[in-house]
Parts: sequence; C-alpha cells; structure tokens
Amino acid sequence: MVAEFESTDSMRSGKPLRHVQTAVFPAPMKLHLGGLLPSVEVAYETYGTLDAEGSNAVLICHAITGDSHLARHDAEDDPGWWEGLVGPGKAVDTDRLFVVCSNVLGGCRGTTGPGTINPVTGNPFGSDFPLVTVEDMVDVQKRLIDLLGIKRLRAVIGGSLGGHQTLCWATRYPEYVQTAIPIAASARVTAQAIAFDVVGRNAIQSDPHFHGGQYYDTGDFPRTGLALARMLGHITYLSSEAMTRKFDLDRHAPRDIVTDFEKRFSVGSYLAYQGKQFVGRFDANSYVAVTLAMDNFDLGDSRERRLAAFRAAQCDWLVISFSSDWLFPPSQSRELVAIMTTLGQPVSYCEIETDGGHDSFLLADDIEAFSPLVAAKLGAPQPRPPRISFEDDRILELIPPNSSVLDLGCGEGDLLGRLKERGAPLLCGVEVSTELIAATMQQGVEAIDYDLNVGLPEFDDNRFDYVVLSSTLQAVPNVERLLEEALRVGRRAIVGFTNFAHRTLREMFGLEGRAPKAPGSYSYEWYNTPNRRFPSIQDMLDLCEKMGVTVEKARYYDDTEGRIIGDDEDANLLAETALLVVSKNSG
Amino acid sequence: MVAEFESTDSMRSGKPLRHVQTAVFPAPMKLHLGGLLPSVEVAYETYGTLDAEGSNAVLICHAITGDSHLARHDAEDDPGWWEGLVGPGKAVDTDRLFVVCSNVLGGCRGTTGPGTINPVTGNPFGSDFPLVTVEDMVDVQKRLIDLLGIKRLRAVIGGSLGGHQTLCWATRYPEYVQTAIPIAASARVTAQAIAFDVVGRNAIQSDPHFHGGQYYDTGDFPRTGLALARMLGHITYLSSEAMTRKFDLDRHAPRDIVTDFEKRFSVGSYLAYQGKQFVGRFDANSYVAVTLAMDNFDLGDSRERRLAAFRAAQCDWLVISFSSDWLFPPSQSRELVAIMTTLGQPVSYCEIETDGGHDSFLLADDIEAFSPLVAAKLGAPQPRPPRISFEDDRILELIPPNSSVLDLGCGEGDLLGRLKERGAPLLCGVEVSTELIAATMQQGVEAIDYDLNVGLPEFDDNRFDYVVLSSTLQAVPNVERLLEEALRVGRRAIVGFTNFAHRTLREMFGLEGRAPKAPGSYSYEWYNTPNRRFPSIQDMLDLCEKMGVTVEKARYYDDTEGRIIGDDEDANLLAETALLVVSKNSG
Repeated sequence: MVAEFESTDSMRSGKPLRHVQTAVFPAPMKLHLGGLLPSVEVAYETYGTLDAEGSNAVLICHAITGDSHLARHDAEDDPGWWEGLVGPGKAVDTDRLFVVCSNVLGGCRGTTGPGTINPVTGNPFGSDFPLVTVEDMVDVQKRLIDLLGIKRLRAVIGGSLGGHQTLCWATRYPEYVQTAIPIAASARVTAQAIAFDVVGRNAIQSDPHFHGGQYYDTGDFPRTGLALARMLGHITYLSSEAMTRKFDLDRHAPRDIVTDFEKRFSVGSYLAYQGKQFVGRFDANSYVAVTLAMDNFDLGDSRERRLAAFRAAQCDWLVISFSSDWLFPPSQSRELVAIMTTLGQPVSYCEIETDGGHDSFLLADDIEAFSPLVAAKLGAPQPRPPRISFEDDRILELIPPNSSVLDLGCGEGDLLGRLKERGAPLLCGVEVSTELIAATMQQGVEAIDYDLNVGLPEFDDNRFDYVVLSSTLQAVPNVERLLEEALRVGRRAIVGFTNFAHRTLREMFGLEGRAPKAPGSYSYEWYNTPNRRFPSIQDMLDLCEKMGVTVEKARYYDDTEGRIIGDDEDANLLAETALLVVSKNSG
Repeated sequence: MVAEFESTDSMRSGKPLRHVQTAVFPAPMKLHLGGLLPSVEVAYETYGTLDAEGSNAVLICHAITGDSHLARHDAEDDPGWWEGLVGPGKAVDTDRLFVVCSNVLGGCRGTTGPGTINPVTGNPFGSDFPLVTVEDMVDVQKRLIDLLGIKRLRAVIGGSLGGHQTLCWATRYPEYVQTAIPIAASARVTAQAIAFDVVGRNAIQSDPHFHGGQYYDTGDFPRTGLALARMLGHITYLSSEAMTRKFDLDRHAPRDIVTDFEKRFSVGSYLAYQGKQFVGRFDANSYVAVTLAMDNFDLGDSRERRLAAFRAAQCDWLVISFSSDWLFPPSQSRELVAIMTTLGQPVSYCEIETDGGHDSFLLADDIEAFSPLVAAKLGAPQPRPPRISFEDDRILELIPPNSSVLDLGCGEGDLLGRLKERGAPLLCGVEVSTELIAATMQQGVEAIDYDLNVGLPEFDDNRFDYVVLSSTLQAVPNVERLLEEALRVGRRAIVGFTNFAHRTLREMFGLEGRAPKAPGSYSYEWYNTPNRRFPSIQDMLDLCEKMGVTVEKARYYDDTEGRIIGDDEDANLLAETALLVVSKNSG
C-alpha cells in the first residue's frame, strides 16, 4: 500500500543529492521581465562524458517539482525520476552521450531561488525574489552549458515545464539545439491549468504563515497552503480513469495516516499523504515562483504569433503527448506540430495511449512506450533496413530521385526507408499507432501520429514533391478532402488502390450477386472489412475529372499475371490494382 | 464584462426570498448514518396549483449551492435558477403542474443546517451538526410532500446533487414517483470529484477562522477557505473549452477587482470574484455538510450492486447528460441507463452536445436544448402524429399487434409512433442526435441516445419481441456483433436493406465498371456515402447462415414497379429492397 502512495516525482525525501555540482556566476543577471539577480548559482548533475568536440551533450529539463537527479550515478545511488530513459544503453544513452540536468532557477534544490541568501541583504530573498520566467531558466542553463564547454546541444528534452524549457531553448538559442523533444508540453498552458495554479497559489499566499513570503526567519512556513496546492496539483496530474483504478476499489477505506486534514475516503488519505510529503521537501515561495513561470510562458495565443515564435528554430523535433493528459491535452501538442509542419521543420509526433494522465511522462510503462521514439530520434539503434515489396517497387519507379515525399498511411515506413537510401531532401510518414510511428522513425524518417479521418497535418502548400496514398483513400470517409489536401501540400500525389471493377470481382457480383472480394486489402467479408470505399478505376478517374485533377500517369496492373496492362486494353476490366500520378494541373 | 462574471447558480446575492414558506416538523428525525436531529424545518417555494387528487406535483431538487428559487413568482420577483425550464407554458408547465422546490437539509437557505439554532443548546449546531446524507435530504422532502397533500409525484427532477436526490427518490420511495429525471448525475461521484471536494473541505477546515466549525459566535468565519473551495469548485463546473473561450482572449488582462487573492490573469480575477461573491451568501459548515452528502452518496460500486439498488424503482426515466461535463461525465449517465435497460425500466436518454461542462444544466442554451425532452416526458405538447411511409407499412405488416419493439436507428420515431397507435406493451428507439431523440419522445415513445458503432444499450435477454434494423446495418462497422446483440435482446429481428445486387446495380457495375448507386440511402457517390457496408440479399442470407440465424420470413420488393417479388423469382437479381425476419432458431 505504501508503494501506491508514492508519488512519481517525489520518490526521494529531499535529502541532499551526493552527485550535485554547483556553478557560480557572480555577474548580475538581467531577467526577462525586468528584474535583476545580483548573481546566480546553478546546482546540476551530469552523466557520461563530453566528447572532444563538445557536441554529444543532451540537456534534460525537469518539471515543476523535479530536480537534477535523473538517474543513479552508481549502484548505491538513489533512483532518479527518469531512470527508465537515461543511462547506459537506455534511449538517452550515457555510454555515448553527455547528459546534463540542472535544477531550475526559482526552485529550491540548490539553484538560486527565493530561499537563497540575497547577497545584498544577507537574508533569504523571500518575497524580494524577482519574477522569473522560463526564458530566465533557459538563460541560466545557457550559462552552464557554456561553462561546461558544450558547443551545441545534441538534444534538449523535457516534460511539462521541462517541455516549455525545451521549446524555449529551440526558439531562443536556435543555433545551439540540434534536436528538441518537448513531452506533454504546449505553446502555453490552458486557461483551466492557470486556474488550478491560481487556486494553489492563493492557498499558499493566504496561509497566515506566509507572511507575504518573508517566513524564513519565523521558524514556520505556510505548510497548510503548500499542502493544499500540492493536493490540487496531484489531481490534475492524474487522469480520472487512473484515480478510479487507484482509489475506487476501497473508496470508503482511507489509510489511517497522521494528518490534520480530512480523514475520509481512500483518495483523501492519499492526498493528505502527498501534501505532507511535499511540504517536507519543497519551498512555498519556490512553488509560487515556478508555477508563475509556467503560467506566464507564452509562445503565442494565435497561430500567427506561434508561427512567428517558432520561425527561428533550426532543430528537428520529436513531440510526444499522452492520450489521457487533460492538463496538457494532446490537442496542444498537435497545435505545436501544426506550427512545425507549416514552417517545414522536421518533426515526428506520437500520442501515447495511456490512462496515466499528465504524469505519464514519469511513469515506467509510458517511458518504456516512448523510449524507442527518443532512441530513434537520437540515432540509436541503427536504422532497420527497409523491407522490399513489389508494391513499393512500383511506387519507387514513379518517383524521381531527390524528390521530397509524404507517405500517408506509411505503415512501418519501408517505402520511406527505401527513398531515404536513394537520397531525398525531405521525407515524412503519417500513421496512427505508436508502433508504426516508432518503426518508421527507426528508418531514420520523420513520422507523425495523425488520424487521416480528421485531415492532414498542416503542411505548407507544395511542401512535398510527392504525396503517396497507397491503399489509404479506401479507408477514409473524407476522400475528396484528403485528396484535395494531398494536392495542396504536394505537387503531385500517387494514388494506389485496388480496382473494384476487375473482371473477377464483376463476375462475382454480376453473376453470383455477392459482394466481391479481392486479394490483399479487399480480402475481407462485406461485414467486417476495414475499408469503407470501393472504387473502380473508372470511378477514381471520374472523381479526378470532377475535382479538376490531372492524371499525369496511370499504371494498371494484372497482379495475378504479373504484368502491366497496355494502353490499348480495358484497364477497368483487366487491372487488379492501379497507381495514378495526379496533380492539380498539367504543370 | 460584469455579466460574464456572473455565476450560473448565484445570480442572486443571498437576499431573503419573498416567496419562501417554512414547514416545521417538531418530531426528532433519525438520520441515515445514525445521527439524530431534534426537529426539522424546511424552507420551500411552490409554483402552480395542486389538483384535487394531489397528483400533478413535480418536485425539483437543487444542486449544492442552489436554492428553492426556481423561477419568478411574479414580474417583480428575482429570476430563478431554472427560469428557462419552469413556468407557465414552459417544459415544467406551472399552468398544469404544481411545482415544489425545498432548500436542502444541511444547507443555509432556511432548511435545518449547521447554522440553525440547536434547540437543545440554544446555539447554532456548528460542528455538532450530524453527518447528513442524500437519503436524509430526501426523507425531509418526503415529510414536506406528505404535509402538502401530494399523493404521488408526477415527477422528480434535479441536476448534479439534485440528480442524486432524484435517483434516491426513485429508489427509496418508488411508489411515490411516476417519472424521474436525473440530469448530469451518477450512481456515485468519481474518485476525481471526491478528490476535488476533499481539497475544498481541507481549505475550509484548515482555515484558522474555522475553529472546528464553531465560528458562529466569533464574529468571523473561514472566508478564505470557503473562497478557495468555491474557486476550485468553479473550475470543475466549467469545461476547459469554455474556460478558453471565456478567458483566453485577454488572458493577461485581469479585471482590477478588490481582493486579497492573486491579481494575475483574467481567469484569476474571475475566480477571486466568484470566491468573494460566494462567501457573502453561503455558510462554510453547510458547504462541508452538503459536499460530504454528495461524496457519500453511493448506489453501488459494481453493476451488481447498482442493479440491486435500482431494482425497486417503479418510475419511468429521462436521463440527461452533457458532452463536456467532466465532473459527472456522460459515461456515468450511460451506466445508469444500462442499469435501467437491464432491469426493463422505461428510460429515455440524451447526451446534449455543449461545451458548457457540468454547469450546462443551468445554462440558458442548454436548458433550451433539453427542455423538449422534459416536456415530452411530462406529456406535453400533444404527441406529433406519426408520418405514414410505405417502408414503415411493410415493416408493420411483419409485426403482430401487441408486440414489444426496439427500433435501432429509429429516426424521428414514426414507425414507433404507429406501433404505439396500434397498442404495444413496450416500445423503444435508439438514435444519436438530440433532435431525433426529442422527435421520437414526442411520439410518446422512449428513446435512447446511443452510438450503434459502440454496441447496444444493455437490454436484458429477450426484452423485446422484435428488434428493427431498417437501413441500419449498412452504416455500422460491427455488423455481426450488432446483429448478434439484436437477437439477444429481441426474439426476432427485422433487417431491412437495399439489395446491392439488384439488376440495375449489377449492370452499372458489371458493364460500366462503376460503383453502383441505388435510390434512397444508396444514392450517394462512392466517395461520400455515409454507408460502409454494401450487401446483396445473398450476402445477407450467407451471413445469417454463417451465424446460425434462421430466416423466418423474407420479403423482397421491386420498388420501381411497386410489387413483391415472388418465391419463384430470382430476388437477388430483381429486388431493390429486402426485409428479413430472423431469429436465433426456428422457434
């Protein structure tokens, strides 16, 4: 039962970390919103070894109540909060990467914060601590990076507030970031998330022991308010489903813990426990400072402003969200991806299916789920060689070398992998499952988790030379819109489909009066096929004509005989499958 | 801007209500969890006139911070919180119904609560007020109902905690309730909802001005804790989408209100305003008492226990939920409906599409949306006469009089309306839109909002004589499962469909090689049809054979010629449409 009460990001009790180093920057630091810090100290931990070029460093940014302790440094060490992701042979492989994690500015784990002695007064800053922002946090990390001799970051990675820092790094110091991996992040938090933080801060600041933030010499601190804020935060980190799973089997049987808080309901005792643990390891002023930094983080309230904010970025991206995260919902990650695709920035995106809520980025199972994506993005393991298939061969024949290609419904990315082998300026796949996204990324190709039933990721006009729709149109309800979109983002589209008017199918239907079946993707029964569209070649050509789409090339195949149907033959009768190269106009 | 700050259930400032009456019950009242109240007073309002039989009364139950003031009593009166639903000519028509709403036990609007003088001590109860439950609230209402001479309630209606009271009425006093309308309700609240309430109560009870609940003679009260609880509650009543809409255009421009709370962010000033308004009109001990009653309400943590709890009910039901309500999510209402359908209790259900969140039951637009359902359930306006169609004529011919019928995909309920005219023991429709649900209910027939792509509402085995699937199977992905389910809940199913192998379609496909189109539901193009299944008669017969389903009767129609295809003819070639009466076995 104790284990169940453990919080994901507070597994340690606030005791001193043995491997923390400190860097002191004695010069005054001007803050983003106008304040000034007389000097700055940074507490941080590192893993692995920096290479001679200073180019193998990964900066990891922690969330609101996290700290620099990512992982064990040795067998005796305490486990870290990203133990599953960081270490020798892990996705962030410390055998080949130099990993840095510093405690955030404004926090209470060694880096300058409200509890730090103000050198000007000789007392803790308290309420004199200036308003800090995510930009300031990143500026402090930049000083540290420079001090450590890191020339350019191989990657910046972080979840939640760490994701905000990641986004800030990529847009504020673009030339220093090769890859950015924002997890459970957003261009800015939702109004609802701010509202929860407001209530939490109000609980702290209205606690009689807060004394306007100058409580350090009173011998007490706003423990009640801080505990309330933590309880509230905790609810927002979990999904409702996860809370049901954890607390509903014994709803009316709270654990009998020592607390002044309400002792009803098992979820009540859990919250009381969490509140108590937290006040033992976190400073109330820091909680206020760091949540304010998060709430003030704002890369734009409109698409236009976000485009302006992200335009500077030079990195490639991996964006990760969690299906049950309602604090930083997946829709916010998709908004980020839409900005990146519009700007033509290389981006992979995956929404992990989980009931873990916002906390998922800290949960072992979910870390295991997104680790392969991170590993693939960081170039490990070696790309899987693409599988050869005659279907892909046919499509490859139609795509000139050095074309940029978007593959809608890319499966495991084999076609893209082969295009990559041939050399291509820009390749991207779209799929819907974590496994297929990961498989495609393992080809060394960007992959985006997106439901084509909804539409297309928001690529700019003519971003690609070719958009491939191979056995894809048949499965979507919005055929016209998807084809239109494909021809907006691509100069040409390649449409591959089974010809539903092939002779054997016509016979089956015309003579036997039964719904026809074809090999491959039409080999299902009428009542259980995943397909919902059943066009003939002529149907597809009719649609192209109606839409003003030019058919530049058409290849019709008799798969049984293994031959291409000739121009003088009745393809609509003889072809089993078809490939059309189409464009909006004959240019 | 002020208007936007108004809360949905706090439109009045706590000033005395002119039309409140008070009933005194001097006898001691034993409480559900063992406590005792020396006596009980009930403050209530009534609208309309009780008829001579005492049979036209509707009891409306209010939510946590609501009160008895449903609607204006006269032109000078303040508006009430259900002004849109209750009044002359409204859905709850006070021209023909006698409407009663009493303030809840434990509250602070006149009915006995923690602020009431304890006759034993001469001081307010404060922390001596015993733990009350929803059952106790209902028991007090029962005393009032008896006093008013009401023999049986035409209906009990309520949202949120009012919905809990409604469910409690129907199961605790089954013989007194003809119709129950629980809105945004649940068999018990989620673990997440309890968690939010725990934090709210902790904020109140840890406020130094709480004094263990004995603050009435201190000249002060836990205003900070109560305000925090209210702020938090408010967030849970709104959807994230609604908060974005309300507060994100001017996120960083808070209204400059007088408050000791945080003054950042527009949503922050809104919460501060709500907190301030609330502490001026609500008692902290009542907030604790009433939220505890809600959290303790529990009609079972498993399906078996819920079945046991609801088995006693004798009413018919209208269950209403709101799509964006995450505090009482629609899934909880569907759980209730599943219990009712399993038990064979007449139930209609509708999920209203809205971004209003839990508060939707108080919002004018949403009230307008669900009013027709309430009106139809209460027998007004007069049922719409069903439209005659030859398709329905054909189905009617196949259903013997006095059969019970479930119509899956019932449209506007015309077939059910005609069955009702003929007389039928049990009729029910299933549809997916509020408009079609309302239209079917206006036929005087139960209708359930349910996505057949997911499955069927959980009717007990053989609940119906006939299940009608008219042009329905073609639109679902799970054909086999839906047909299986139809034959589980019904003794027979009537499957109506367009024959995709009709001669003209075969010709179109076989000779022209184009996806065929038929009149009616197949008159779409291949790329935009809502259908996803295209069976011929023979396909459907094959499926029946494979599934072990007996075809008892088959009627095949040439719609163009207006004739029935004879037994000696090739129906699969000649019929445009087909109706099959099928059953699991030949019995």
